[in-house]
Amino acid sequence: MDMRNAAIKYAENNYQQTISFLDEIISIPSISTQPENSADMQICANRLTKKFHELGFDHIQLFPTQKHPIIYADFLNAGPQKPTLLIYGHYDVQPIDPIDLWTSEPFKSRIDGDYLYSRGSSDMKGQIVACLAAIEAVIKTGRLPVNIKYIIEGEEEIGSPNLKPFLESHKELLKSDVALNPDCGMVGINVPTIVYGLRGLAYFELKVFGPDHDLHSGVFGGVVHNPAQVLIDLIAKMHDNNGKITLPHFYDDVLQLSEKEKLELNRLNLDDSYYKAQTGVINTWGEKGYSAVERIGARPTLEVNGFLSGFTGTGAKTIIPAMAMAKLSTRLVPNQDPEKVHQQLLDFVKANIPNTVRWELSMLSGGHPSISDTSIPEAIALSKALETVWGKKPIYKREGGSVPVVADMQQILGIDSVLTGFGLPDDNIHSPNERLHLPTWRKGIDALIYFFLNLE
Amino acid sequence: MDMRNAAIKYAENNYQQTISFLDEIISIPSISTQPENSADMQICANRLTKKFHELGFDHIQLFPTQKHPIIYADFLNAGPQKPTLLIYGHYDVQPIDPIDLWTSEPFKSRIDGDYLYSRGSSDMKGQIVACLAAIEAVIKTGRLPVNIKYIIEGEEEIGSPNLKPFLESHKELLKSDVALNPDCGMVGINVPTIVYGLRGLAYFELKVFGPDHDLHSGVFGGVVHNPAQVLIDLIAKMHDNNGKITLPHFYDDVLQLSEKEKLELNRLNLDDSYYKAQTGVINTWGEKGYSAVERIGARPTLEVNGFLSGFTGTGAKTIIPAMAMAKLSTRLVPNQDPEKVHQQLLDFVKANIPNTVRWELSMLSGGHPSISDTSIPEAIALSKALETVWGKKPIYKREGGSVPVVADMQQILGIDSVLTGFGLPDDNIHSPNERLHLPTWRKGIDALIYFFLNLE
Repeated sequence: MDMRNAAIKYAENNYQQTISFLDEIISIPSISTQPENSADMQICANRLTKKFHELGFDHIQLFPTQKHPIIYADFLNAGPQKPTLLIYGHYDVQPIDPIDLWTSEPFKSRIDGDYLYSRGSSDMKGQIVACLAAIEAVIKTGRLPVNIKYIIEGEEEIGSPNLKPFLESHKELLKSDVALNPDCGMVGINVPTIVYGLRGLAYFELKVFGPDHDLHSGVFGGVVHNPAQVLIDLIAKMHDNNGKITLPHFYDDVLQLSEKEKLELNRLNLDDSYYKAQTGVINTWGEKGYSAVERIGARPTLEVNGFLSGFTGTGAKTIIPAMAMAKLSTRLVPNQDPEKVHQQLLDFVKANIPNTVRWELSMLSGGHPSISDTSIPEAIALSKALETVWGKKPIYKREGGSVPVVADMQQILGIDSVLTGFGLPDDNIHSPNERLHLPTWRKGIDALIYFFLNLE
Repeated sequence: MDMRNAAIKYAENNYQQTISFLDEIISIPSISTQPENSADMQICANRLTKKFHELGFDHIQLFPTQKHPIIYADFLNAGPQKPTLLIYGHYDVQPIDPIDLWTSEPFKSRIDGDYLYSRGSSDMKGQIVACLAAIEAVIKTGRLPVNIKYIIEGEEEIGSPNLKPFLESHKELLKSDVALNPDCGMVGINVPTIVYGLRGLAYFELKVFGPDHDLHSGVFGGVVHNPAQVLIDLIAKMHDNNGKITLPHFYDDVLQLSEKEKLELNRLNLDDSYYKAQTGVINTWGEKGYSAVERIGARPTLEVNGFLSGFTGTGAKTIIPAMAMAKLSTRLVPNQDPEKVHQQLLDFVKANIPNTVRWELSMLSGGHPSISDTSIPEAIALSKALETVWGKKPIYKREGGSVPVVADMQQILGIDSVLTGFGLPDDNIHSPNERLHLPTWRKGIDALIYFFLNLE
C-alpha cells in the first residue's frame, strides 16, 4: 500500500511537468493526412522517442513506414517470468478545419477552467501522456510488476495503413500477454468505463463524372444528367425509410446483441435526451427498432462525411457541374468485414447508377470491428483500479468509434486488449475546440498507476 | 445599296480597332457576384460610357444602383417621326472558377485559330462590341434610320436585381417601339438563329443544419441525422423516375408546345448525338416524353448547381458534418412564375424535411420566361439581315437560357424584343476557357449593320 501511495504522490508532485510535456507534444501539428505536415510527424515521433529515453526504457526504436514512423520502446525490468503488457498509442491527430470555428490556436494549449483546449488533447496525446506519467510514477517510486512494450503509430487518423504489416512482420518483438489500449473514453465525468466492443470502419470516396466541363444550366439543362443529382440519387437509395442500409448483404454478418448485453448497455442512460444535449440536434435519428445506445454500440451505420460539387461560393452560378464527389463511410460491427463492405458498395453502385455518367469508387481505409473478453485478469485489474479512483464499479460499454488495432492484435498477435481512456463524449474530438477535462485526466493517471500495480 | 456597302466596308477596315476595344473591356474583370470586383464594375461601366461619347451619342448617363451602375446612352438623330430601338446589354461576367482549368489568363484575350479566348468574350462583351461596331459603321458612313437608346446593366449574371426597378422608374426615358437583345446565340456556325422563347429562372440556396458542430462519426453515428443525408434525401425526391419535377403544382402553368412549334424545333437536328458531342456526356438524360430540343426550349428543369458539406479535402475525415448547403435552380417556361416556384419549393421542403434538422431556404434570383412575336417588322428586318449575310433563312428557336429582361420589358415598357446574338453553343460560357468564334462574330457585325439599315 506504501508503494501505491508513493506513486500517486509522485504523480501529484510531478503534475506541472506532466502538463508541460503535454503542451510540448501538442504544439507539434502532427496531422497525418496532410502532406505538408509530414516533417511534423517526424518531429513528434522524435520527441516521444526522447521521452522514452528519459524514462530509462531499454530498447527504443523508430520504425520507418511508407508514410509515418512507428515508435517502439520496451521496459522489461520485471523479468521473463512476469507477463508482458503491450501498450498502444497514436501520435497523429485530425485536421483542424473548419479553422475559423476554433476560439484559440489549435496547436497551442489553452487552459480555461477545468479544460485544456487543443487538437490532440483528448484524442490521444493526453492519453499517451497519462500513460507515460503513470509509468514514470511507478518506476520512480518502486518497480513495475509487468514488462512493458509500447508502440505508438502515426497513422491512426488515416486508417493505420502501415500498422497491420508492422504487426505481421514484428510478431516476435511484440510478443506479449495482453494489450492496454487507452484510446477509448468515458461515458461521463463520474462514470468510469471499460470498453469491450468497438466498431470497424470502411471509408470510401465516390466520384461521378458527367459533362467534360461545367455547363450553362440554361443552355444544357434538360439533356444532361447532372452528376450531383446522380450522386444524390444514389446516396439517397443507400438507406430505406427505416434508417436501414440497403447495400446487398450488408447485415448478413452482423452479430445480434445478447439480452444480457442489451440490459447492460441500456443501463447507461445514454438515451435520446443525452445525445440531444451532447450534439445540439433538435431530434435524434437512427435505425428503427434499436435504442440510441444500441445503435451506436452494436449497429452499423453509413454516413456522408463530405460532399462537393459545382459552385459553392457566395451568390449564384448557373452551372451543371462536371463532377460530384462524396466521402462515405460505414461503421461496422462484429462480424462485418470492411473488404466485404467495399464489394457490397461496388455492387450497389453498379446496380443503381444510370448509364449517363462515369464513376470511380476508392476505398480510403478500413478496419475490423472487435469484441474483447472482460473476464481476463488484466480486465479485472483495470476494473479494480477504476473502482479505487472513482469509488464505483466501471460500466462495460460497446463503443461507436473504431480502434481497428484491437482486432488486428487479436488476429495477428493472438492477444486481447483491455480498453479504457479518460476522454469524455463532449471533448470535441475530430471537431474544432477539442478539449481535455483535466480533473478526469488526473484521476486517469492515478487509475493507470493502480492498474499497473494491480498486475502484481 | 451604296450606303450598305460603305458601312460593311467601314466595319471591315475598322476590324483591328474593334478587336482592340474588345480586348480592352475584356481586360476589366467585371465579375458582378464578387464583392472584391466592385471597383472593376465601375471601371468597366466608365470605359463603355467613354465609348458612347466617342461615338457621338447625345445623352449619356451612368445610373447608380444599390450594386452596380446601369449605363444609359441615346442617339436620337433619326428624329421624332422615326421609331426608337432600345438595345440591351450587360457588361458583367461570370466568375472564373475553377481557375486551374483555364489554359490562359481569363481576362487577357488570346486568339488561337478562329477563336478568341477570354471570360466575357461570348457572354456578352463580344456582342456589345459587335453592336457598337455596327452602329459606328452606319453613322460614320451614312445615317441611322432609327433612334437608338442603349442600356447596359452590370448585374445580369446575378439575376438583375436592380434592372426591373430601373425600368419601372425610367419608363419615359426608355420609351421605345421595340427592343434588340443580342444576348442569345446561334445554333451552329452556319445556322443564323432568331430566338423567340426564353426560359425563366428561380435560383435558391438551401441549407440544412444538424448538430451544432462537426461530430465524430464513430462516437455519434447512429443517433444523429446527418444533414448531408437529409439534404440528399430531400433533393432526390425533387424528381420522379421519369425525370419530372415533383414540387407541388410545378407544371400547372406550363404552356404546352403547339404542333407547329414542335415541328419547327425538331427540324433543328439538335438531337441526342448533337448534345453528346457538345457536352462530352456518355448518354443524354431528361424528362420522358419530350425530345432533347423540346426539353431545353420548352420544358422546365431543376438543377443542383452546387453542393457542399463536411470534409472535402484529400484523404479521410470521419465526421458527421454540422451542415449541408445546396445551390438549386429551376429553369422556367411560359407561363411559370419564379415567385410561385419559390412558394412551391418552400411547400415541398416543409412537407418533406424531417424534424431532426433546422433549415433555411433563400431565393437568390428570379426572372420570368418569355415568348416574343416573330411577325413584327423589326423581327422581319432581323430575319432578312441574317439571310443576307448567311445566304439562308434563319431558324426560329426557343432558348434554354434565361434573359428575364425580355419579360420585364414586355411587362413594364410594353415592348417586344427581337433576340439574336453571335455566340455558339460550344463557347464555354459560364465555364473555363470561354471563347468567341471570330468569323461568326464578324458576320454578326455585318448582320447588325443590315438590320439597322433594314429598319428604314
